[in-house]
Amino acid sequence: MPDNPVNHEIPDEILSAFDRKLFSGAYSNTPHIRIDKGNRSLPRLNKIVDTIEQVVIKTGLSDGMTISFHHHFRGGDKVINMVMDVISHMGIKNLTLAASSLTTVHSPLVGHIKSGTISRICTSGIRGELADEISAGLMDHPILIHSHGGRARAIETGKIKIDVAFLGVPTCDVYGNANGYTGASACGSLGYAKVDAHFARKVVLITDTIAEYPNTPFSIHQDQVDYIVVVDQVGDPKGISSGATRLTKNPRDILIGSLAAKVIACSGYFEDGFSLQTGSGGASLVTTKFLREYMEQQNIRANWALGGITAQMVKLHEDGLIKRLLDVQSFDQEAIRSIGENRYHSEIDASYYANPLNKGCAVNKINVVVLSALEIDTEFNVNVLTGSDGVLRGASGGHSDTAIGSGLSIVVAPLIRGRSATVVDQIKTVITPGSTIDVLVTDRGIAVNPRRPQVAEQLRRCKLPVIPISELKEKAQKLAGVPEPIIFEKKIVAVVEYRDGTILDVVRQVQA
Amino acid sequence: MPDNPVNHEIPDEILSAFDRKLFSGAYSNTPHIRIDKGNRSLPRLNKIVDTIEQVVIKTGLSDGMTISFHHHFRGGDKVINMVMDVISHMGIKNLTLAASSLTTVHSPLVGHIKSGTISRICTSGIRGELADEISAGLMDHPILIHSHGGRARAIETGKIKIDVAFLGVPTCDVYGNANGYTGASACGSLGYAKVDAHFARKVVLITDTIAEYPNTPFSIHQDQVDYIVVVDQVGDPKGISSGATRLTKNPRDILIGSLAAKVIACSGYFEDGFSLQTGSGGASLVTTKFLREYMEQQNIRANWALGGITAQMVKLHEDGLIKRLLDVQSFDQEAIRSIGENRYHSEIDASYYANPLNKGCAVNKINVVVLSALEIDTEFNVNVLTGSDGVLRGASGGHSDTAIGSGLSIVVAPLIRGRSATVVDQIKTVITPGSTIDVLVTDRGIAVNPRRPQVAEQLRRCKLPVIPISELKEKAQKLAGVPEPIIFEKKIVAVVEYRDGTILDVVRQVQA
Repeated sequence: MPDNPVNHEIPDEILSAFDRKLFSGAYSNTPHIRIDKGNRSLPRLNKIVDTIEQVVIKTGLSDGMTISFHHHFRGGDKVINMVMDVISHMGIKNLTLAASSLTTVHSPLVGHIKSGTISRICTSGIRGELADEISAGLMDHPILIHSHGGRARAIETGKIKIDVAFLGVPTCDVYGNANGYTGASACGSLGYAKVDAHFARKVVLITDTIAEYPNTPFSIHQDQVDYIVVVDQVGDPKGISSGATRLTKNPRDILIGSLAAKVIACSGYFEDGFSLQTGSGGASLVTTKFLREYMEQQNIRANWALGGITAQMVKLHEDGLIKRLLDVQSFDQEAIRSIGENRYHSEIDASYYANPLNKGCAVNKINVVVLSALEIDTEFNVNVLTGSDGVLRGASGGHSDTAIGSGLSIVVAPLIRGRSATVVDQIKTVITPGSTIDVLVTDRGIAVNPRRPQVAEQLRRCKLPVIPISELKEKAQKLAGVPEPIIFEKKIVAVVEYRDGTILDVVRQVQA
Repeated sequence: MPDNPVNHEIPDEILSAFDRKLFSGAYSNTPHIRIDKGNRSLPRLNKIVDTIEQVVIKTGLSDGMTISFHHHFRGGDKVINMVMDVISHMGIKNLTLAASSLTTVHSPLVGHIKSGTISRICTSGIRGELADEISAGLMDHPILIHSHGGRARAIETGKIKIDVAFLGVPTCDVYGNANGYTGASACGSLGYAKVDAHFARKVVLITDTIAEYPNTPFSIHQDQVDYIVVVDQVGDPKGISSGATRLTKNPRDILIGSLAAKVIACSGYFEDGFSLQTGSGGASLVTTKFLREYMEQQNIRANWALGGITAQMVKLHEDGLIKRLLDVQSFDQEAIRSIGENRYHSEIDASYYANPLNKGCAVNKINVVVLSALEIDTEFNVNVLTGSDGVLRGASGGHSDTAIGSGLSIVVAPLIRGRSATVVDQIKTVITPGSTIDVLVTDRGIAVNPRRPQVAEQLRRCKLPVIPISELKEKAQKLAGVPEPIIFEKKIVAVVEYRDGTILDVVRQVQA
C-alpha cells in the first residue's frame, strides 16, 4: 500500500510529530455516508428507529444510568410516561430521572419508583400525587430540587451526567433538526431541552411530526442527535398551553399587581432601556398590565424581557414597548406563535438564561423581576416548594436565579392564602435566600429589605405603604392565627440545592 | 452559623451522599452580579477591556500556547495582524496559530514567525507572501492543512486545544452577544468562529461596533465570551466581500458551467427536493445560472443549498427555487443582507457543516456538489492546495468534506490553465481522494469515475461528451506539453490532514 493515493512518501516522524495515523482510505473512518444504492436514489440518511424499545436498546441504557426529560409540554406532556412505561417493561432498574421539571401528569412515576425502575430524581418542581407520595416517604433516596440555572450548571460541569436524554420535540427532520414552534404539539422555546441535547451522551428525539429536511430554524440540531422515534402524540395541546394567559379578575391580585407596578415605577430602576421578568402568576400579569400604563405615560421603553414569555409580553413587544424577548419557555399560544415569527423574539437555553457558573447568564443583566411566594419569613427568605402542610407542591424554577441576578427583586403575594399566613416566622423550606429579595408587595402593605434603604426611601416618597416586614407578619398572624406546627418525621425526602451547587435546605417526611 | 438561613438542620450524610458542600451565602460563589453601587444606577455588567495588550494579559496567554482566529473577513481581515502585532511586541513566543484560513493580507505573519512568536500553524488555506515563504522553508515545523470539517472535528475532539480565541465580530453587546450581519464590517455567517467560541478556553471578541444589549439574534453568545476589545475597524468592507458575486464573461468558464449544469440535470440526482452546493468559483457560478433554467423548465425546486452562500443562491431562494439556505460563510453583500433578513437562510457552524465525526453533518445529506481543482490525476485525486510550481497557494476548505458527503461530486476545471495542464499523471498534492470524486467536467470533455458506471450511462444517454479521463490527460499533454519536473527539497513544509484526522499527504520545500 502506498503512503498516500498519489505515492508520496510520508515519513514516520511526521506521523509521530503530529500524533496522527496514516490515511487509510476515504471511507474507512466515515462509514455513514453515501449509503444509497445506485444512482437513481438520493442519499437519504436518517436516524429514525421504529419503537421506543428499540431505541432504548440502541442507546445501551442499563441499570443505574441517568436519563433526562424536559418540561416544555408542561401539563400536556406525554413523553415521560410513554418512555418510562417502556423502560419499566424492559426491566431496567435503579435509574436516576433528571427532569427539568415534573407536573401533576407524572403520577404514573409512582409505580416506576415502587418497581425499582427509578431510584433517584432531580427536578426543579414536583406536584400532585407523585409529590404527595414522595413527601410521605416513597423513595429511599431524597430527591434533589434544583433551580433552572442550577440544573444547567450541574449538567455543564458534569455534576449531572446524562446517559440518555429523551427529548420530546414538536417537529424534527429525519436527521434530527428540531424546533418547538411548528407542528400540532408546538410548545415554543425548547430552552431547557437544548442543554440536555448539548451534553447528554446519547440524545433521542421523540416526535409526532417529521418535517422536511432541513427543518430550519432549528433549536436542537442534527449534530447533537443520535436517534429519532415517531409516536402518535408527544403532547396534548390543551395541557401544553392556554390560548393566551388570561388576566385575573381576582380583586386582591389586581390590588397587589397595581402596587407592584407602582413599586417598579418608583424604584429608580424604571428608566428608558430597562429590562424585566414578570412570569405568569396572577398578580405578576396584572403588574405587567399596570406597568404598561406607566411606560406609555412616561414614554419609557424596555430594551428586553426575559424568562417564561406570555401573550402579554408578546403584545408589549409587538407594540414596540419591549424591544427584544429572550425566551427560555413559552407559556401560551401567543408566545409560541411569536417565537416562530418575530425576529427579535429569541430562544435562549437554560444556561444562557441562568447558569451561575458560565461566562455570563442573562439573569445577571435583568433590572427588575417579579416573583411569587408560598411563604416568606421576616428575613425575606422565600419558600416556593412546600405548602403550608409541609408537602411538596411547587417548583424552584428561576426564582433564586433571577432574585440574585436582578437589580431589584420583588415578591408579590397575598398576606393570607386560604387560611394560612404567607408572611411567617418560620418558612417550611427555603428556596431563595432573603439576602437576594428586595421588596415584598402584599395586599396589606409593602416591606423593603433593610439591605436596600434607598429603595425604601424611593417608595416612601411615592406615598407607597411601606412598613416593616415584622408588622406584615403580625397582621397575618392576627388574621390567620398561629398555625399548629407540622410534625415532620426524621426522614429526608428532598434536598434543596442552591443555584451554585451547595445544599441550602432539606425537606422531611410529613407525618401521615 | 446555622446550617441554612432558616435554621434547618442539614445532616452531614446528606452532603456526602450528594457530594456537595453546605450553602455558604448567596453571593459567595457568584461574585459577578449586582455590582452596581446605589439603587439609581442599573446593573451594567460588561466585559470590555481597554486594549488588546490588557486582554492578552487577562487571558494568561503565555509561551507555547495555541491561539485561534477565523477568516470571515476574508481579504479584509484586520484582526489577525492587529492581535499578532501586540502579542509579538509583548514578547510571547512559540505559539501555535490555529486559523480557520489565512489569506494574502496576512504576510506580516512572516515577521512573527521569524521572531519566534509563531512556531506552528494549522489552517485550511494559505496564500501570498506568507505561503511563498513557508514553501521556501521559513518554518522549523511543517504547517498543518485541514479541511473545514476536519478543523471542527479536531477542535471538538481536543486534537486542537485552543487556549485563547481572538474572534473579530462585526457587532457585539457589552456582555458578548455577537452577530455577523450588522455593523459596518458585516461579514454574514460566523460559522467557523462559532466552533472556536464553543471550545476555546478563553474567548476574546474584537469588534468595532458595540450594540445595545441584548444583541439578538446572536451567533456567538454571552455565556461563551470572556472579554471584549473595541478597536477602530475589524475589517475593510472592500476586502470582506464583493457587492455581489459577478458572473464570469470568460467563454471557457461559460462552456464548462453549461456542461456541468447539464451533467447535474442528466445525472439522476436532479429531482424535486434535491440539494446542492456550488461555491463561488467562476465556472461554479455559471453552473448555477444554467441549472436555474433546467429547474424552471422542469418545474424542479431544491429543498436546500449548502456552504458558502452567494448572491446567486440568495436570488434562487428569494425566487422560491431553493427553499432553505444553510450558510457557513457568506461570500458577498447579498448573502450578508439575506442572512440578516430571511428566516430560512440559516447560519450553521463548521461542525454542523462538515465535521465527519459528530452525530451527523450537513455534507452527508447533500445531493450534488460542484468543486474546483488546480490539478486532477487519472485516478480523480484532486489538488486544490499547491500550484503547478509546487508552491502553496490554495485552500483545502470544504473540498474533501463535500466530495465524500455528496451523492454526486463534480469537479469543474479548464483542461489547461495558463500554460499548465490541469489533468495530469501526477498531482503535486492530494487534498481530496479520487475515490470520492465522481465526475470531471472540462472544456474539452467530461470524464466519469469508473466507480460510477450508472452515472456515465446517464450522461451518455444525454449525449454528453463522456470520455475516459486518460484521454483528457493526453489531450492536455498534447496542448501543454509534459512539464519539467519540479525539484523539491527533502524538507517537509506542510502536512495535509484528511478530514478524519489521518495524514493524507506532505508538501516539500521548493528548491530556490
